Amino acid sequence: MTLQELADQFGLELRGKPDHLIDGVGTLMRATPSQISFLANPAYTRELEKTRAGAVLVEAKKAERCPVNALVTDDPYLTYARIAKLFDPRPQAPPGVHKSAVIDPTARIGKDVSIGALVVIGERSVIGEGCTLHPGTVIGADCSLGKGCLLHANVTLTQRIRLGDRVILHPGAVIGADGFGIAFDKSASNGGRWEKVPQLGGVVIGDDCEIGANSAVDRGAIEDTVLEEDVRVDNLVQIGHNVHIGAHTAIAGGAAIAGSARIGRYCLMAGRSGVNGHVNVADRTTIGADTNIMRDVEEPGTSWYADIPAQPIREWQRNLARLFKLEALNRRVRKLEKSQSDSSAGEIDEDE
Amino acid sequence: MTLQELADQFGLELRGKPDHLIDGVGTLMRATPSQISFLANPAYTRELEKTRAGAVLVEAKKAERCPVNALVTDDPYLTYARIAKLFDPRPQAPPGVHKSAVIDPTARIGKDVSIGALVVIGERSVIGEGCTLHPGTVIGADCSLGKGCLLHANVTLTQRIRLGDRVILHPGAVIGADGFGIAFDKSASNGGRWEKVPQLGGVVIGDDCEIGANSAVDRGAIEDTVLEEDVRVDNLVQIGHNVHIGAHTAIAGGAAIAGSARIGRYCLMAGRSGVNGHVNVADRTTIGADTNIMRDVEEPGTSWYADIPAQPIREWQRNLARLFKLEALNRRVRKLEKSQSDSSAGEIDEDE
Amino acid sequence: MTLQELADQFGLELRGKPDHLIDGVGTLMRATPSQISFLANPAYTRELEKTRAGAVLVEAKKAERCPVNALVTDDPYLTYARIAKLFDPRPQAPPGVHKSAVIDPTARIGKDVSIGALVVIGERSVIGEGCTLHPGTVIGADCSLGKGCLLHANVTLTQRIRLGDRVILHPGAVIGADGFGIAFDKSASNGGRWEKVPQLGGVVIGDDCEIGANSAVDRGAIEDTVLEEDVRVDNLVQIGHNVHIGAHTAIAGGAAIAGSARIGRYCLMAGRSGVNGHVNVADRTTIGADTNIMRDVEEPGTSWYADIPAQPIREWQRNLARLFKLEALNRRVRKLEKSQSDSSAGEIDEDE
Repeated sequence: MTLQELADQFGLELRGKPDHLIDGVGTLMRATPSQISFLANPAYTRELEKTRAGAVLVEAKKAERCPVNALVTDDPYLTYARIAKLFDPRPQAPPGVHKSAVIDPTARIGKDVSIGALVVIGERSVIGEGCTLHPGTVIGADCSLGKGCLLHANVTLTQRIRLGDRVILHPGAVIGADGFGIAFDKSASNGGRWEKVPQLGGVVIGDDCEIGANSAVDRGAIEDTVLEEDVRVDNLVQIGHNVHIGAHTAIAGGAAIAGSARIGRYCLMAGRSGVNGHVNVADRTTIGADTNIMRDVEEPGTSWYADIPAQPIREWQRNLARLFKLEALNRRVRKLEKSQSDSSAGEIDEDE
Repeated sequence: MTLQELADQFGLELRGKPDHLIDGVGTLMRATPSQISFLANPAYTRELEKTRAGAVLVEAKKAERCPVNALVTDDPYLTYARIAKLFDPRPQAPPGVHKSAVIDPTARIGKDVSIGALVVIGERSVIGEGCTLHPGTVIGADCSLGKGCLLHANVTLTQRIRLGDRVILHPGAVIGADGFGIAFDKSASNGGRWEKVPQLGGVVIGDDCEIGANSAVDRGAIEDTVLEEDVRVDNLVQIGHNVHIGAHTAIAGGAAIAGSARIGRYCLMAGRSGVNGHVNVADRTTIGADTNIMRDVEEPGTSWYADIPAQPIREWQRNLARLFKLEALNRRVRKLEKSQSDSSAGEIDEDE
Repeated sequence: MTLQELADQFGLELRGKPDHLIDGVGTLMRATPSQISFLANPAYTRELEKTRAGAVLVEAKKAERCPVNALVTDDPYLTYARIAKLFDPRPQAPPGVHKSAVIDPTARIGKDVSIGALVVIGERSVIGEGCTLHPGTVIGADCSLGKGCLLHANVTLTQRIRLGDRVILHPGAVIGADGFGIAFDKSASNGGRWEKVPQLGGVVIGDDCEIGANSAVDRGAIEDTVLEEDVRVDNLVQIGHNVHIGAHTAIAGGAAIAGSARIGRYCLMAGRSGVNGHVNVADRTTIGADTNIMRDVEEPGTSWYADIPAQPIREWQRNLARLFKLEALNRRVRKLEKSQSDSSAGEIDEDE
């Protein structure tokens, strides 16, 4: 494509040669003259100045520092995301149903699907128009997929799972395993044992959601587990039974949300963050890496942290030893305060 | 079923209409007059008072606050677990062996099994009577499954894995991958390299165990990794080689147990808790969320924590800065103590 | 094998009977007279003294405490690793291509491979000589595997993944899922929504790497995600897009490395450790369990920690309460200091 064509298609201001040809994308450091790059993070401005890319997507205020053709946009990263789709080198999955797929006669398959080798589709499940299912994916009974869903290889949908349109599930994702419901039978003869609580709900996943590799979304215990539209979930994330996640929330790798938690819309959960069971989190909450929300967050738009950055081992050991003597340190300070108070005058404690 | 039938079958006291018909379960808030619900958590007592359920399982002391038919039981949640099994809407897996399954001729398959599409069963493996294997599950060589096991889709058993009776494995669970055994060869010419240590043990999983989606239980290095009976494991849990877990222990999502740790009976491990390698944990130990046990726990029945609840970002940053200056703070207090001691009298330090 | 044969093959000094026969390995406590054991950890010296093994691999300084035949070596664990390979009881995968495998006609399959039941191999992918692929593994288009790779069951390689020689992937590992790339479109009519950023890079995994069960290595956003040779990765580990991991680094279970982080050579990452996005970690860095590296580590060979050992619940609650009042405690100490300073003389604060 020429730069002029890109400018026209995406509504960009072109500063440079309209007929310059682009056939791919690249980083500022490595893009060739036939590739387009972008500057989103100001930390890379120096790389902009040295780039040999065919063109760079930049904000207006950075455009004059661009040594090559510039395509000016308010949001270079977003524009890059859209342009890059034109240059995706990945082969399209072949149309039709692979002869090795095992599809129950009662399943209904929409038009223009691509169903790969050794896919299994269970009784009464419905696959919407334009869906792509990669090899080894297993869809149980009574599931429904909207239009244009993309299920990568070795995904599992158990039973009664409903996906909206354009949902993307990455390899190994498991949707609808039983939630962790066990009741302790203390009267059992051997001192007590666990009784499994049937998990009778389903999972409902809204339009444009994406679930990462080897993540798990459990089915509800009685009612459904729900992800509203455009929820974005990274790899190895655990979402427990009856969790409800509001639209446009993004959840990074290794996060875990315990049963019946309710997460608002437009929340951001960083890597390995967590939310306790039955906790409510307001809209637009940010939860830092390795941080667990243990009580309701009621005010929208707040940020929560409890991460401890790594320390050199000796410093950490010293601080840790002190941490475990905080109670004693507090007593020592109180004693000093009391002693001073006795010797000078009665003062009010700030503490306790 | 009528309420009288439920009362008779489960030994409950009925306060209400014996011939009221029940055809399913529901939450207190949403159950319809043909569904049964339960009150286990006192926090939901208000919902009890507003319920429209056909009947509610309640303790005697709450029964009079139940506005509808009541079935009185000492343990409503446990009774619910048992009754709910009657109303599980999930279709039974079809009996027999699907024609696309690949079963080694030397494998032995018990009676009344359901073996789904594209299941693989390796040499000399034995599948007990009444087992259900969902599509895509792979069982390697020399495995044995007891009676009535349920393996969901895309489960992997490698080789020489032994499951007891009624074991449940959720999708993506991997039983018997190699443990993380590597020996460093410092004499290698290039400055050292890793040598893989063969993992020659197996895995033994007792009766009534349940392993969650995408969890992993490694095979032993020399001897076996062992889960005794009725161990309940949630999703995305890692259990290292040669771990031994006592009967009736429950382990929530994202927990990790390092190699050769030994966990007692009736322990509770909360979400993302952990136990270090070679550590022993006594019976009936509770380990809190995000808490790691680093040394032996010798006394049974104790509770251990190290979780830090999330804080608003500014408060956390301030406290964190202080945490990293605890050593300095301690010195300042010592100086004050010394100064006071000099000015008044010799006192004994509480610290050090 | 006789002990003399083992001594000759591995260059060991034999103290004992040359013609003693060994047919397996065992632990010091349980090895039988036909098995060989080893003493690597001095904590087990007592077990050495009681062993009934046929022979024990020991360092010279421990050899005289060995009550049975001794094979003397500088590094018993490394020597054990090599000897144990002789006694691996696991059946070899059958040679050839299973008839149920689905192999694209454009794929190229090397000599002496073992391709199991229901394996899928996509367009133009190349499988090197001597590779073993266990059942249910899916390899997408344009992948290449070097010689002697071992892919266990239900592994997924998406597209354009390159494995070196002798790479081992454990069950459920996912190589090449899309990285977590999303751009927020704040101009969208409904208050903003996410736009997926295409993930166009691949994954390159060097010779002798090993990736654990249910771990995930994401494909790069533009360039490739890279693991150099001999990187050893345990189970349930997340490696984000464009991460670069140096040769001989070992990463234990549950660790997570965020996008574009760069880890040096010979690093050790303990269980559930982490590295933030875009962070650089120098060679030979040790990262403790549950510890997150949030800033560059520039000096090679350092150790970093932030783990908090579990405490009995009451002690932890008390210390935690104090932790959240550290700011107040600091103010109280300052007040005491000021008061003393006023009463005695002007002193310089150690703090701030």
